[in-house]
Amino acid sequence: MNSTANSTLQLRRVAIDTYKENVAYLHRDCLVYRSEGFQALSKIEVSSTTNGRSVLATLNVVDDSSITAPGQLGLSLQAFRQLDLPEGAAATVAHAKSPESLHAVHRKIAGERLAYADYKAITADIVANRYAKIEMAAFLVACTETGMERDEVLYLTRAMADSGEKLAWHEPLVADKHCIGGIPGNRTSMLVVPIVAAHGIFIPKTSSRAITSPAGTADTMEVLAEVELPPRLLNDIVRTERGCLAWGGTARLAPVDDTLISVERPLSLDSPGQLVASILAKKIAAGATHLLIDIPMGPSAKVRSQADALRLRKLFEFVGDRVGLQLEVMVTDGHQPIGRGIGPVLEARDVMQVLENDPDQPRDLREKALQLAARILEFDPDVRGGQGYMLARDILESGRALDKMRAIIDAQGRRQIIHEPGKLFTKIKAEKTANVIAIDNLQMARIARLAGAPMDKGAGVDLFAKVGDRVKRGQALYAIHAEFAADFDFACEAAAVDSGFTLGP
Amino acid sequence: MNSTANSTLQLRRVAIDTYKENVAYLHRDCLVYRSEGFQALSKIEVSSTTNGRSVLATLNVVDDSSITAPGQLGLSLQAFRQLDLPEGAAATVAHAKSPESLHAVHRKIAGERLAYADYKAITADIVANRYAKIEMAAFLVACTETGMERDEVLYLTRAMADSGEKLAWHEPLVADKHCIGGIPGNRTSMLVVPIVAAHGIFIPKTSSRAITSPAGTADTMEVLAEVELPPRLLNDIVRTERGCLAWGGTARLAPVDDTLISVERPLSLDSPGQLVASILAKKIAAGATHLLIDIPMGPSAKVRSQADALRLRKLFEFVGDRVGLQLEVMVTDGHQPIGRGIGPVLEARDVMQVLENDPDQPRDLREKALQLAARILEFDPDVRGGQGYMLARDILESGRALDKMRAIIDAQGRRQIIHEPGKLFTKIKAEKTANVIAIDNLQMARIARLAGAPMDKGAGVDLFAKVGDRVKRGQALYAIHAEFAADFDFACEAAAVDSGFTLGP
Repeated sequence: MNSTANSTLQLRRVAIDTYKENVAYLHRDCLVYRSEGFQALSKIEVSSTTNGRSVLATLNVVDDSSITAPGQLGLSLQAFRQLDLPEGAAATVAHAKSPESLHAVHRKIAGERLAYADYKAITADIVANRYAKIEMAAFLVACTETGMERDEVLYLTRAMADSGEKLAWHEPLVADKHCIGGIPGNRTSMLVVPIVAAHGIFIPKTSSRAITSPAGTADTMEVLAEVELPPRLLNDIVRTERGCLAWGGTARLAPVDDTLISVERPLSLDSPGQLVASILAKKIAAGATHLLIDIPMGPSAKVRSQADALRLRKLFEFVGDRVGLQLEVMVTDGHQPIGRGIGPVLEARDVMQVLENDPDQPRDLREKALQLAARILEFDPDVRGGQGYMLARDILESGRALDKMRAIIDAQGRRQIIHEPGKLFTKIKAEKTANVIAIDNLQMARIARLAGAPMDKGAGVDLFAKVGDRVKRGQALYAIHAEFAADFDFACEAAAVDSGFTLGP
Repeated sequence: MNSTANSTLQLRRVAIDTYKENVAYLHRDCLVYRSEGFQALSKIEVSSTTNGRSVLATLNVVDDSSITAPGQLGLSLQAFRQLDLPEGAAATVAHAKSPESLHAVHRKIAGERLAYADYKAITADIVANRYAKIEMAAFLVACTETGMERDEVLYLTRAMADSGEKLAWHEPLVADKHCIGGIPGNRTSMLVVPIVAAHGIFIPKTSSRAITSPAGTADTMEVLAEVELPPRLLNDIVRTERGCLAWGGTARLAPVDDTLISVERPLSLDSPGQLVASILAKKIAAGATHLLIDIPMGPSAKVRSQADALRLRKLFEFVGDRVGLQLEVMVTDGHQPIGRGIGPVLEARDVMQVLENDPDQPRDLREKALQLAARILEFDPDVRGGQGYMLARDILESGRALDKMRAIIDAQGRRQIIHEPGKLFTKIKAEKTANVIAIDNLQMARIARLAGAPMDKGAGVDLFAKVGDRVKRGQALYAIHAEFAADFDFACEAAAVDSGFTLGP
């Protein structure tokens, strides 16, 4: 029937960012809108009459010709980009057929256990932008913890890993690490990579940018070096240096994951099954053979109890074993931020202090990085069990880790501009003489974000006291740095309402 | 924290119809967008600095100042209307807190049985526009058949019924009927209401307009009379005539239902629980005491097997009994369209032929209407069991039903313009001499819609043959009527691809 339902419209780019959902705009008086029985939120298929491409989009109805006039077909930025045509090009619209795999989603909703072929079909349709946001929500809700057996987590992991490109390194040991997140200042990758690469272990580390946190590893590394590298260059760097610290967005690794996250996040869906499939799919696609997972646990961390941490560890192990990953899980201390800085520049400073063996370095960051590096070093068959920590410490203290980091920075492209902490700053002081009882990870992250991190590299929070420290009345607990006045005010107000610190006897 | 996160923006009406979801537009360079850590699809709360109102909306990020400039806050039509302020008025934005009741949705997702208070809180938040579309999708998926016990269907029904206004008629017997839909031409309400109202039974029938079908009862009645009536006038008419045939949209009855339908429909979620709660909530809010439910069953109807029909009937009865409705269910023949006309004018013609006892009247429409009216007449304690049908026939044949229909039309406001079937028409002919084996409800509805129904009143399909009829090669099966050439072409093309008729020996 689609063939009968097309009438030519002129393409128009509508400069609205609708994130991971394609939106099409049709004027209410457009003949095509009237005759097709479309309504707002209908899913339509937009096809080019020239390049053979088509995209699916959710319809919004427009009453303002300056946005989209009758006879025009407006597309949001994402959709316009996918169709890959100039403005004014001819396009046709038709009712979109529901993706075939939606039947599997309905079976999942009805409580059935899905097979690998089902997960495969669903992820393929999502990658092809054939799912609307509410359809993805339906899939994700149907797949939450109660709905998804261990085997299904494995199927989903495999299907996601296969949904995009895959890297093949042709190395016997390709190491990687991943932290499930939630702890500000936790920039261990920037220490672990130079340590293990200095030993010779192959560790092509790619990282994400911050989405809800004040800094991702990519944002922080970017203070020191280029992180957006063409795949070919990245490959050369890793071959030479045995490691890198780059942004992972340039390769289309497990792309379905990014799309699903755009729905999971606003819905606060964070079932262990989704988390495990999401992380492991990316790592498999990135070609890892050996993987260390860091699960920080604490009252304001993502994982808040030993029981939850254990359950998550078992699920990682179950899937990891079956996809052929040599996988280790470490449950780490997540009851407060790691290091002192929160925000790209401040975190990069902490990292460099540790690498430079600066006497003023943050000891907790150094210690955690050594623990993690030790486990990865022991992936090497030639490293005796239990010797990893000493080896990691030797590499760090001898300056070999610093040399490796400098080599990686130079290879990726050293920054010419030296970023400084934000010029606007204030100190938040203790209201009484007491001990620091707790530091709220979530509130510290929030203050740093309000101050402008991660967009403003120098913005963030610099901690002067940690849990267990004795502070005197009027002594600074931390400084807030910002680059813009409005951001600075927001952050200071937030800190005034709730400093994030609990002081007590 | 919301208090720290506001900065004043100028309100702007963005003429985009986003249906049941509020959308807010912020320019990417707007300071508020940058500092708040918003991202596309964030849910934000927009508050007036003058009238105290606030609305929640999903954020779209704009790169075109002609849609929304930095310093402005664009709102889609729905959201702008809810905030009820002029353009240029001052508004502030903040991160929206998730609605409290989302915790209950997460419990439902985790497989828990929810209590009445949970359903109450969820529906209240949805009515207050505190749910995003994906959150409603999450709720609906969690509530599908496997997830919702009978008691929960009852709770949801009650909560939905209480979500808006409720009518109180102060009559001992307030009759209503409802068909679960899916059968083109099935305009029995326009016959049942005059028959039972002529007997004296109180039947304040309100109906919907077509959403996916070629005509709703309101669209068809509108050919003859006004259907959009102020509640006060409607009340007077029902008091005088004992019945009416009006559009139900003027009263805010069970408004949460309309919102949920906007997500259920594109997701094709049609669990029995949702269906029963949706229908019964509206009827309870409309003040019905006695209700007849029509479940058409057939291969191209909504309900396709006796087992499904029975299960649905039991669920209607379970909930109906507990909300104090005297409820009867009839499973009817749904294997082909009812009557001849499909589309408002053509269906109104069929109805008037039956009321006028025209020898050419469609007998199946007459027969079905009498069967339904009979059951409602027997709600009257003074009508002996089994006498309903004869009584209904008497009322129809004596012309009392026609008189009552004319009185209702005059009371609601008779149309001065006489609508005619669309001037453009063609006949679809049998390709061979054969029997009509089947008529596809879905395809006939589709052709009628493409022809312009229900928007173009005279558009639609006029059937000349029904299942079981013998047709000769070249004999007309049906005519397509349209008012506009483009629509006409679409409908003819669709009929050429699939006529909707199956001919066989």
